[in-house]
Amino acid sequence: MQYRQFFDDALTRLRDERRYRVFADLERDAERFPRATWHHGGDEIDVMVWCSNDYLGMGRHPVVIAAMRTAAQRYGAGAGGTRNISGNSHPVVALEAELADLHGKSAALAFTSGWISNLAGISTIASLLPDALILSDAWNHNSMIEGIRRSGCEKQVFRHNDVDHLEDLLRDAGSDRAKLIVFESLYSMDGDMAPIGRITELARRYGAMTYCDEVHAVGLYGPRGAGIAERDGVMGEVDVLEGTLAKGFGTLGGYIAGDAAVIDAVRSYAPSFIFTTALPPAVAAAATAAVRHLKASGEERARHQARVSDTKLALLRAGIPVMENRSHIVPVFVGDAELCKAASDRLLEKHRIYIQPINYPTVARGTERLRITPTPFHGRAEIAALTEALSEVWQALDLPTTAHDRAIAAE
Amino acid sequence: MQYRQFFDDALTRLRDERRYRVFADLERDAERFPRATWHHGGDEIDVMVWCSNDYLGMGRHPVVIAAMRTAAQRYGAGAGGTRNISGNSHPVVALEAELADLHGKSAALAFTSGWISNLAGISTIASLLPDALILSDAWNHNSMIEGIRRSGCEKQVFRHNDVDHLEDLLRDAGSDRAKLIVFESLYSMDGDMAPIGRITELARRYGAMTYCDEVHAVGLYGPRGAGIAERDGVMGEVDVLEGTLAKGFGTLGGYIAGDAAVIDAVRSYAPSFIFTTALPPAVAAAATAAVRHLKASGEERARHQARVSDTKLALLRAGIPVMENRSHIVPVFVGDAELCKAASDRLLEKHRIYIQPINYPTVARGTERLRITPTPFHGRAEIAALTEALSEVWQALDLPTTAHDRAIAAE
Ligand SMILES: Cc1ncc(COP(=O)(O)O)c(C=O)c1O
Ligand SMILES: Cc1ncc(COP(=O)(O)O)c(C=O)c1O
Repeated sequence: MQYRQFFDDALTRLRDERRYRVFADLERDAERFPRATWHHGGDEIDVMVWCSNDYLGMGRHPVVIAAMRTAAQRYGAGAGGTRNISGNSHPVVALEAELADLHGKSAALAFTSGWISNLAGISTIASLLPDALILSDAWNHNSMIEGIRRSGCEKQVFRHNDVDHLEDLLRDAGSDRAKLIVFESLYSMDGDMAPIGRITELARRYGAMTYCDEVHAVGLYGPRGAGIAERDGVMGEVDVLEGTLAKGFGTLGGYIAGDAAVIDAVRSYAPSFIFTTALPPAVAAAATAAVRHLKASGEERARHQARVSDTKLALLRAGIPVMENRSHIVPVFVGDAELCKAASDRLLEKHRIYIQPINYPTVARGTERLRITPTPFHGRAEIAALTEALSEVWQALDLPTTAHDRAIAAE
Repeated sequence: MQYRQFFDDALTRLRDERRYRVFADLERDAERFPRATWHHGGDEIDVMVWCSNDYLGMGRHPVVIAAMRTAAQRYGAGAGGTRNISGNSHPVVALEAELADLHGKSAALAFTSGWISNLAGISTIASLLPDALILSDAWNHNSMIEGIRRSGCEKQVFRHNDVDHLEDLLRDAGSDRAKLIVFESLYSMDGDMAPIGRITELARRYGAMTYCDEVHAVGLYGPRGAGIAERDGVMGEVDVLEGTLAKGFGTLGGYIAGDAAVIDAVRSYAPSFIFTTALPPAVAAAATAAVRHLKASGEERARHQARVSDTKLALLRAGIPVMENRSHIVPVFVGDAELCKAASDRLLEKHRIYIQPINYPTVARGTERLRITPTPFHGRAEIAALTEALSEVWQALDLPTTAHDRAIAAE
């Protein structure tokens, strides 16, 4: 049997659909963030990154880097085992205490990624409930969908952010059935936010548990950086909060926070937590430093929001079709996979600006976009350069100047 | 609905079955490895760790720690995004080249854990084959079983390391059907090894693909530390090799290596790879340093094997029931969950020796054991102290002096 052919064919299919992805070989530079070095055809080219998910630049914060370096020196480079078999390190225990405190919950559990925290958290929680029904927002992230699927439970999908639809489903399910509502606080490709208070209110009324992914909000919103639920004053109403350490907190890893019994049950039952090596002490220490810093300091958040609105304004004034939202995500509509890739290539090659094209399957076909993420380190000059570059690219490629209605994107 | 009760009940079930796990709060110390500090009831107690999966102590190797520290300073603490969206860092690209070279394959792909590399690798490879049949060793690790399950493909289980049984299944499947054989090179709880050459020979004869997990062997066996397949001279016969960066290589992460088309297909299709933040540059740099070092140096491997056989001999002489194998794992039979936990507790509390009890579900009920992993840093004095401590515990708790037949363990 010629196995290779199957894989070649699979790759050809992606190329034919213009979905084959090439990763740019980038070298971050902590001192010049968000500038980076692009390794391209033997050359090293200086570029400005406008699509980092290190939203606040905490990955380059001296306090975070120092914590990582000190912990590496002291504890070594790895955990040395699973949490149970010799891999439980003091810095991970300290990190979990910090995260529980951040969210005002009695416990937290750290994982090596946000992806795994959703897989483990959702699948374990749902499967420990008798005959649970999972109610899932239509736009939920892949990791949440994998967790739902892994639980083996029945799932019903409610229209994105549509609380009336959610209420219909809750009412139909009846009060006797265990129900878990799974949603995100901030959807990262459109930058829109969930009505968390209304969802938790429904959950209370109909007797459902709530699980909220705050991956794109932790560190960024709320007086202590705990996310949208904190900002909206409803953090105590959400049963389980999930977050990442790899975006606003600039390092690596993910977590869930909630009632101690729930967290302990996930710790004790989830194979995706039990059978894998723990986070290195150095990574945990760096994450803890980032969480602690952002708990106490609102400066990064304030500057971040200011730069985001400066960017949105500048682009809108220049006629670039920014897709509207009230978050730190600046999606710019293109609506075609090939043009989106071409725009990204031209930005990089001609303007030395790195913005990855966002195509299917990350977003729906016909809603392809450039997703711009300003950081506190993108100043006036960088915003002006970005605006100019996008204007040139929009003209050169004759790109659309208005965004489609988002209802279309939701399909 | 009283949701909390469900989680309390789940925890009570574990406690009733004596399966509730408590993680020891340990503080590694790079300079005194394998000694560590145990945080216990407000005290800090010096202990000797005898169950680390940092098998060679590479996590404390000055070259590895220096690589992590230097990269953290230069690139920052995190990757900043998924591989596709601004998270592809130069050190990760370099790591993948190093791993492909290590295994003599045309490509490799890095993940944030070995667990995820199995989930992504097996599920994606199998699902890209038409109507694939997966033939899986009965003792395969949870991460492999999750990958198989996630693929949605038909699975047949062959008796552990039983090539005759495997051949029966291959013959029955017929030559027209796509077949993927999934197995480990070294089973970590018993320390026995797969007959890789005979398996690949069968694969060739019956036209099957092979996928081999070398998690507990990479860094440790073979002239360049590529694992058992390298040692046995059959690395070229295995289609896909999977490994971890968190055990022999002392850091964090996992990978697959194989033909470029296969690896590129996993890169392009696996959601568990696509939708998660990449390894931090500092972790990738540390892993690369460990891989490079162990490619060139056989010293750690030689000393490791010497200390392993010293340990086995000393324990056997003292009448401790070491379960036989020819690897670096030293399982000591207990055969009862409660006694196993009691032995571990007594070792820690009375002798300041940390060896985690291995109970169900990690091993079959009735085959509970202490799993001892000597490192190159356990010298004559430490081995003598271990032997004395185990003898005391064996006498005090009246533990069995012979191991059950392993056929029972396989159930
Ligand atoms: C909503 C959401 N949840 C979870 C994740 C996964 O988090 P991590 O990158 O830490 O694996 C992501 C993206 O990476 C995400 O967008
Ligand atoms: C056979 C096997 N494969 C994979 C893994 C997972 O590797 P990692 O710890 O890097 O997630 C483990 C244990 O941790 C294992 O024992």
